[in-house]
Amino acid sequence: MTRLQLTPDGRLKHLLTLEGLPETLLHRIFELADSFLEVSTRSVKKVPLLRGKSVFNLFFENSTRTRTTFEIAAARLSADVINLNIATSSTAKGESLLDTVDNLAAMMADMFVIRHAAAGAPVRIAQHLAERGQTHISVLNAGDGRHAHPTQGLLDMYTIRHYKREFTHLSVAIVGDVLHSRVARSEISALSALGVPDIRVAGPKTLLPKELSALGVTVTHDLDEALDGVDVIMMLRLQNERMHGSFISSVAEYHECWGLTPERLKRAKPNAIVMHPGPMNRGVEIASSVADGPQSVILPQVTFGIAVRMAVFALLADVAPGAAA
Amino acid sequence: MTRLQLTPDGRLKHLLTLEGLPETLLHRIFELADSFLEVSTRSVKKVPLLRGKSVFNLFFENSTRTRTTFEIAAARLSADVINLNIATSSTAKGESLLDTVDNLAAMMADMFVIRHAAAGAPVRIAQHLAERGQTHISVLNAGDGRHAHPTQGLLDMYTIRHYKREFTHLSVAIVGDVLHSRVARSEISALSALGVPDIRVAGPKTLLPKELSALGVTVTHDLDEALDGVDVIMMLRLQNERMHGSFISSVAEYHECWGLTPERLKRAKPNAIVMHPGPMNRGVEIASSVADGPQSVILPQVTFGIAVRMAVFALLADVAPGAAA
Amino acid sequence: MTRLQLTPDGRLKHLLTLEGLPETLLHRIFELADSFLEVSTRSVKKVPLLRGKSVFNLFFENSTRTRTTFEIAAARLSADVINLNIATSSTAKGESLLDTVDNLAAMMADMFVIRHAAAGAPVRIAQHLAERGQTHISVLNAGDGRHAHPTQGLLDMYTIRHYKREFTHLSVAIVGDVLHSRVARSEISALSALGVPDIRVAGPKTLLPKELSALGVTVTHDLDEALDGVDVIMMLRLQNERMHGSFISSVAEYHECWGLTPERLKRAKPNAIVMHPGPMNRGVEIASSVADGPQSVILPQVTFGIAVRMAVFALLADVAPGAAA
Repeated sequence: MTRLQLTPDGRLKHLLTLEGLPETLLHRIFELADSFLEVSTRSVKKVPLLRGKSVFNLFFENSTRTRTTFEIAAARLSADVINLNIATSSTAKGESLLDTVDNLAAMMADMFVIRHAAAGAPVRIAQHLAERGQTHISVLNAGDGRHAHPTQGLLDMYTIRHYKREFTHLSVAIVGDVLHSRVARSEISALSALGVPDIRVAGPKTLLPKELSALGVTVTHDLDEALDGVDVIMMLRLQNERMHGSFISSVAEYHECWGLTPERLKRAKPNAIVMHPGPMNRGVEIASSVADGPQSVILPQVTFGIAVRMAVFALLADVAPGAAA
Repeated sequence: MTRLQLTPDGRLKHLLTLEGLPETLLHRIFELADSFLEVSTRSVKKVPLLRGKSVFNLFFENSTRTRTTFEIAAARLSADVINLNIATSSTAKGESLLDTVDNLAAMMADMFVIRHAAAGAPVRIAQHLAERGQTHISVLNAGDGRHAHPTQGLLDMYTIRHYKREFTHLSVAIVGDVLHSRVARSEISALSALGVPDIRVAGPKTLLPKELSALGVTVTHDLDEALDGVDVIMMLRLQNERMHGSFISSVAEYHECWGLTPERLKRAKPNAIVMHPGPMNRGVEIASSVADGPQSVILPQVTFGIAVRMAVFALLADVAPGAAA
Repeated sequence: MTRLQLTPDGRLKHLLTLEGLPETLLHRIFELADSFLEVSTRSVKKVPLLRGKSVFNLFFENSTRTRTTFEIAAARLSADVINLNIATSSTAKGESLLDTVDNLAAMMADMFVIRHAAAGAPVRIAQHLAERGQTHISVLNAGDGRHAHPTQGLLDMYTIRHYKREFTHLSVAIVGDVLHSRVARSEISALSALGVPDIRVAGPKTLLPKELSALGVTVTHDLDEALDGVDVIMMLRLQNERMHGSFISSVAEYHECWGLTPERLKRAKPNAIVMHPGPMNRGVEIASSVADGPQSVILPQVTFGIAVRMAVFALLADVAPGAAA
């Protein structure tokens, strides 16, 4: 995968996963995002870096919110954005995924932002483009099944860096439905790469994957233990479809055991930050008073997400200002 | 509401309703629309006033036609436009309306164009943004239930001004399903503010709200009486869903009593203009020969609507050329 | 129709069908497409020829792939593109097709790209615009029922010209479901106009229209005969809905008799090219090894399609560089 997403000279060719991304490249993305964050505070929130480039949002799974973040990031770089809801498109006419990709590539696309319910779909597409010699196109994984959602991971790291500056002394708790999260694995991988010494993962037994301990994190089934003295709390979304089933006994009980309440939050450091990838289930994994409280950085995460996605686009298009990574 | 939509120094912050808008501001909008109408006749129908601004079309209720008018108006001001059909979006994942709004605001939006089936939704959103300190975002009501549709009201006033120049000597008839119209109330309010001395409202008893007389208009249940000698006839659309129910006995009978036919039109002044907000039910509230006849200004209304919406965008963004209102 | 789509001085006003288009105009389109093909290989794939023009994609029938080709072509000419899925729009509110068209025309549209399930709809719309005096708007037929799909025909001709240079010595085979194809008729008309001396049409009896022989083509029900010594093979898509019915006995049998396999392909000239309009049914009308083989030009067709559509837009807008046709 590393060979696929990095060029021989270390530039970002595709963004498929955070696993294996060198720390220098992560910092390069953060520095670029700093400059794009400044752009988004201007009256004219637009730079011409991607002018005349064609960004295709290929959403094989509907996600208006995620699509919007990529669309606005690309538009602020002056790219032409084409939205394709492939679920309702010509795959319905019996065409294969890879024929659809070939077809769009032949339209001289520059970027494919891909969301797919199946883990591995963006990797498969990147491989296919390489086999076809379509080296002018970059693939950006916008979420593939439970596998990865690397720009979410990046914006989370950027958020931590923004509030905590250094990673090398931090305690970070990741809480909730890790099993079904496409973010958690990316987070753990990036936190490790950035040198976070204390990563704790907490959730009910039915919602924690077995292979977690192999990743060098501390696993616990006690929320208070997980939160004790941490600098950063990353809450995960309880997927709606898990709420009625065998994974948890009831929403009320889940909130009782795993919901982040003001009382629980006191376990963490006084200046700990609370993060959530959204959309939130208020009163389930997080209490409203915490979500809207002074330690919440949930909305800044969204703002940072645009800047981080602009940074990734600029690197993939190889038009980023300043020195290469 | 006035306090919400105007800044302390009298600039337009949000456009939620026409009620309470000062006459000077209405004239300022009309003058700006004059200049944008000229832009739309050029070969290059585009000005850079909103370049680098992000306009979000948040349609909680589907309306392709209305969405298109705002999209084209924003595009001709060089804004980036993001269309969101929220009906099919993450509200489906259980997120609240206000969380969705916070999220989009955090993407550094400049404008929310909001269409919602519930009266008051745009006002609630504007209040919420104020509470959150998100003062950089303007809300533009694109129709909320039966409450208001202020840009439709403005374009209607602009149309009258275009053909009749002065308001202070006019007789205006508003005819049809006033009860379910989100436009009629806006019209009455704006016509009054602009000094129209003779406003008549006509429709069947079941389709006229009781509180009308309090607004200083003449209420009648006789179409001929309403049309007698008027300068302007504003026909309302009979909502499809009213056509089969207890409100009217039959479509044929409605046309017989309330449809604007060539014979009926003769009651009005010879140079009276006929207006309709669209989409029309030909043969129901209006005869085809009237809709397509020489007194109809129904298609110019559409053209003026783009110019008026451009004017409102420019005022909200505080980038309008020339002196402030 | 010729009178409708050409101005008195021979310029392209609408593109409704290839029938009757003069050969000089076809060559003018090809030369323009050459220059736009060069644009699409640049780093900044964009020219300002249609800046400030409004292109409306009016799709009364869903076709994401076709819509995308027009959207990207218009965007690379810097036009503002508005996508309208009219199937889900205000026609649902009982408005007629022509009222919808009038309404959009009044928004000062420059181009209507129209896809409709009913043959003749784009012609009807062009006639209506002429009757209304809306002479500033051009209609571009993006597929109307079985009738025509002229830009597909043009890109096919452009593809042949790209690989074979001259038309006047070519043998061309058109193979498959001619009856339900909206392309085949356009192809035959254009091939004739360009001077192709040997046009063969092959398919099962149930899928060939009776009036074919009147067009001056050779009709055959034997694939080998059709392919013998040809320079160009144009495969047609077997429509899904024909696959289960009385038109063919089975998909396997269709492939056996009419599928283009490597063995079959040997009948043609060694440097013959294989074309397909997409989306392909692999293993039905075409074997995968042929579709992906060295003689296939199916993906270049897509690339050329963008350039050809840019050329048509530029001619319709009368902004094409260089001398008029």
